[in-house]
Order: sequence, then C-alpha cells, then structure tokens
Amino acid sequence: MKETAENLNRMAKFGISEGISEIILTTKNAPESEKTSNAAPFGIIWKNNKMFLHLFKGSKTYENLMRENYFAANMTDDAVIYAESTFYDLEDEAFETAASIEKNEEEQKTISIPVLKNADRFVLFKCAGRLEADSSVIIDIEPIDFIILNSGKEGFVFNRGFHSVVESCIHLTRYELTKDPVYIDEIRRHRRIVQKCGRKRDKEGFEILRRKLMELETAGHLQPLEPRNF
Amino acid sequence: MKETAENLNRMAKFGISEGISEIILTTKNAPESEKTSNAAPFGIIWKNNKMFLHLFKGSKTYENLMRENYFAANMTDDAVIYAESTFYDLEDEAFETAASIEKNEEEQKTISIPVLKNADRFVLFKCAGRLEADSSVIIDIEPIDFIILNSGKEGFVFNRGFHSVVESCIHLTRYELTKDPVYIDEIRRHRRIVQKCGRKRDKEGFEILRRKLMELETAGHLQPLEPRNF
Repeated sequence: MKETAENLNRMAKFGISEGISEIILTTKNAPESEKTSNAAPFGIIWKNNKMFLHLFKGSKTYENLMRENYFAANMTDDAVIYAESTFYDLEDEAFETAASIEKNEEEQKTISIPVLKNADRFVLFKCAGRLEADSSVIIDIEPIDFIILNSGKEGFVFNRGFHSVVESCIHLTRYELTKDPVYIDEIRRHRRIVQKCGRKRDKEGFEILRRKLMELETAGHLQPLEPRNF
Repeated sequence: MKETAENLNRMAKFGISEGISEIILTTKNAPESEKTSNAAPFGIIWKNNKMFLHLFKGSKTYENLMRENYFAANMTDDAVIYAESTFYDLEDEAFETAASIEKNEEEQKTISIPVLKNADRFVLFKCAGRLEADSSVIIDIEPIDFIILNSGKEGFVFNRGFHSVVESCIHLTRYELTKDPVYIDEIRRHRRIVQKCGRKRDKEGFEILRRKLMELETAGHLQPLEPRNF
C-alpha cells in the first residue's frame, strides 16, 4: 500500500501508521485445535510503500497464516489483553466473528474472521503473497475492511505504563528464547514505570507477566512463547 | 476529580486516564518574556480521586503556574513537538489562543489560554490549590473545557518508536541534571526501537534529541532543561 497522505490518514484512524504499528493479530485456528481462534500481539510493518508481516516459524500465528488467507488487526490499549495474549491462549469467549464481503471480477464471497470482543477497532487484512526464508516468512498484506467497535474510545491516551507492559512482554518472550538476563534487567526498568505511571489495567497486565516469569523460572519452560521480532 | 466510570470515559476521550498521562502543557509567559507562551511535555497525575501536577521549582512551567491559574493539556502523537518542546522554546507561531468562559455565582469571565496549533485535542485546566515543598510544588487541578481540533486524528496508533522518543527526552533531561551515563545507555536502547519501529516524525524527533545531546557534550550545558519527575 502506497504511503500517500490519504492512505496514511485513513489507516491512522484505525491504528496503523508507517513504520511498525503494534496491534493484536487474530487468526482462525485449524479445525482440530482445542480453541477456535488465536490472538497474539504483533507489529504490522509499513515500509517503502509495502505493508507486510514478518513471522517466525513455529508460532501459532505462523501456522495459521500459512493455511488461512485472512486475519484481523485489533486495536486496544488494554494491557491485560496484551499480556494474556502474549503468554496464554485466550478463551473462545474473548472472540467474536467479523464478516466481510470480498468481490472480484468473477465472484463475491463472504469471509469470516475472528476478532477480539474487547477491541476498540480493527482492520481485516488479506494475505497477498508469501516469501519464505529458513526461519521466517514475509507475508505481504492488504487491508480489506475497517470496523469501529467502540467509538467512545477515540482519542489518544498516552500512558508510559501501558507502553512499558508491552515492552516487558516483548522482553520476556526474548528471555525465554535466549535466557539472556539482560532482558530481565529491561523488565525491571519497565516495572518502575508501570508502578509509577500505569493505570489499573496496566498494573494488572504487568502482574500477568510477573506470574509468567515466575512460572518460567520455577517449573521450567513448558510452553514456547511466540517469538517477537524486535 | 473522582475516578468514576463516567469521568474516566470522558477524560479518556481527551487523552487523560488515571495514573500518569503524558501531555504537552502550555502556559502564558510573564509579560516581560521574549516569547508569549511556553510548552513543555508533562505528566498529569490522577490518583486517589485527585488530579494534580508535581512541578519542580526552577522550570518555566513552574514559574508560569505560580502566577497564572490556567493552562492547557495538549494531546499529540507528534514526536517532533515532544522533542522540540522538551529542549527548546517553541516559537510564538506554534501557538494559538483558546478562549473559555468561566462562570461562578457572582460573575462570568473569559479566560484565554495558549494551546498548540498542531495538537489534536486539548483540555483547559484551572489550578485549584498549591502545596509547596522545598524543591517542588503540588498543584491540584480541575478540567474546565474540552476541545477537539483535529477530529481526523481519532483512534489509537501504537508506535513503539514514538514512545521511545518520549522516553529518550525524559532520560536526556535527567542526564543533564545528574551526568549519570546510565541515561545515555537508556537512550541508546531506545534509539534502536526508534530506528526499527518509528514513523518519519519519530525519527525526526529523535534527531532533535541527538543534536541536543551533542550540544550538551560539546558546548557545555548552556541552558538548564526542564527537570522531569519520573
């Protein structure tokens, strides 16, 4: 997608700008899965007039997007949803289904995509092409529909605590992969900001992360976390 | 102000939540000043049903709010405005004047407050009480008016680069006060995120900060930066 002023304005209204925009990506799981849908925090990359995802192999989002052509980018500033979807599978009750109609020259079809019930707004995307490398895949994407769920949540609350929860989630997924204690130092620094600046949900979100860290430290690493590219 | 659901919703629409919300605070300068208005990034604190500012003595915002009873909290996600107003005095052209009418039992008066031309929305505040300590002052505040300038900028773009520019500004003001190189390490970490995730304006904002750092390092500390409480 070209980075014209018109496109930038339209996408910004739905939480997506040039550079990397943080959203929660929701996809349909395979029919045999225990849960119907998957949610994971993710960065949508918009650079040099292209919009794409960079996915590491082995994650559930990767698996789903190698099979499914559609996904949703959900916007929320709820730190609890960020932390839960980073470290755990959300329950089916957290999702609802968005439907969109896709038309081309020959036919018209209805697409159904899981979205987060508690998102403020979301964009439905189509995967337009995949480029595989050894350990990751680049997926070119195109927005196909824009939906506002919670129009009361317009405007921009800028809370350092919220941001620090999200950064801490990213650091903890890296820590799980590398065991490098530098990530724990980062999380400690962010904890101070969450405690000082955070809202109630930011502090609750950090608690989820703290519990996850304790689980990793005490019970061994039972479940691989979705690796984050940062 | 009580943290009721109604108040939280109303304020959130204008960028202010419980915890600490980052805004750009604009005030009227003293008549003898070179510039008519001042802008500085600031955190509005909303805790235990009270909304207040915690200002260190010696800053221009402190001076102005010991003399003036009104200020504006400007919301923007423009990293250039954040960096410029942290390290430099904005030109008069960056401001415009917002007017509000304040009524009480006896009288009705018109208040004029400088706001940022490029803000997306702002809240006008009144100082309701001041509690001075040795090096700082706590000012209780009350919102008196809410204005949306740019309704196209509704919605929530969550860009890690933007956030990292703001964090870097805070670190650089602390570095100037303490000369502790730990803040330079922090800025280095944030620089990586700005380069990777930032939008055009985020990268431009970081450039302003980088130049300021070079000024501090080469020419000595000519001008005290507004200290940030974090």
